[in-house]
Amino acid sequence: MNPVYDNDNIFAKILRGDLPCIKVYEDEHTLAFMDIMPQREGHTLVIPKEPAVTLYQLSPEAALACMKTVQKVGPAVQKATGYEGSSIFQLNGEAAGQTVPHIHFHILPGSVLNIDALKGHAAEMADPEDLKAIAAKIIAEL
Amino acid sequence: MNPVYDNDNIFAKILRGDLPCIKVYEDEHTLAFMDIMPQREGHTLVIPKEPAVTLYQLSPEAALACMKTVQKVGPAVQKATGYEGSSIFQLNGEAAGQTVPHIHFHILPGSVLNIDALKGHAAEMADPEDLKAIAAKIIAEL
Repeated sequence: MNPVYDNDNIFAKILRGDLPCIKVYEDEHTLAFMDIMPQREGHTLVIPKEPAVTLYQLSPEAALACMKTVQKVGPAVQKATGYEGSSIFQLNGEAAGQTVPHIHFHILPGSVLNIDALKGHAAEMADPEDLKAIAAKIIAEL
Repeated sequence: MNPVYDNDNIFAKILRGDLPCIKVYEDEHTLAFMDIMPQREGHTLVIPKEPAVTLYQLSPEAALACMKTVQKVGPAVQKATGYEGSSIFQLNGEAAGQTVPHIHFHILPGSVLNIDALKGHAAEMADPEDLKAIAAKIIAEL
């Protein structure tokens, strides 16, 4: 329940600027960027800058900061993709399918439960140009 | 994006005490109870007492209260069910599969993405005695 945080996970590297990301929003406590292996066009991630593996290790302050960013970015994702609804999901632990050990909230246009209509989780790299194009649309809706 | 809140939705009735629920936790701002149509044993819901249809209409204060309750109840759900991981998910709008128009966070043991291993969403009523038994285990882990 209390895994040790790995400072070399890819989101830690993104937060340090050691790896690039296609950013849609950033503030003092959070970063939002495109999932490079989207399950549907517009699939966006929100992460806290605070290091934590799961939601259960995150400080309430960082959890609130994530919620505020999800509340800001989620509607923009809907508008940018033309979906009238969106799913927020968040996987805690490898046993739940978490692939990067830095807590992240997924914003997915439409329903996460319509699995047949989705690409696999962390399964297939998207074309970066496509990601940049949808990111620009999301940013324009913020 | 800004649906009108229906005071007669079933979670509003539960909050007023007009309908029963199998409660695992309650505080000033939130209520956690068993999903009566669980997708897996231990499927628990966390709702704010503040009326709001989606996360995008919820106040930051209520969002924080929900996060704190999820952080409290989620690990207890894992322990009670023997899962090492858990998924948090939250559907915004009918277009995303939201069935009750009062914002609710789902806590699901294991992965929400392993759809083949799950029962349908809001699909099949569980035996209340089974729900009470797992609720008692969750409460014991709080």
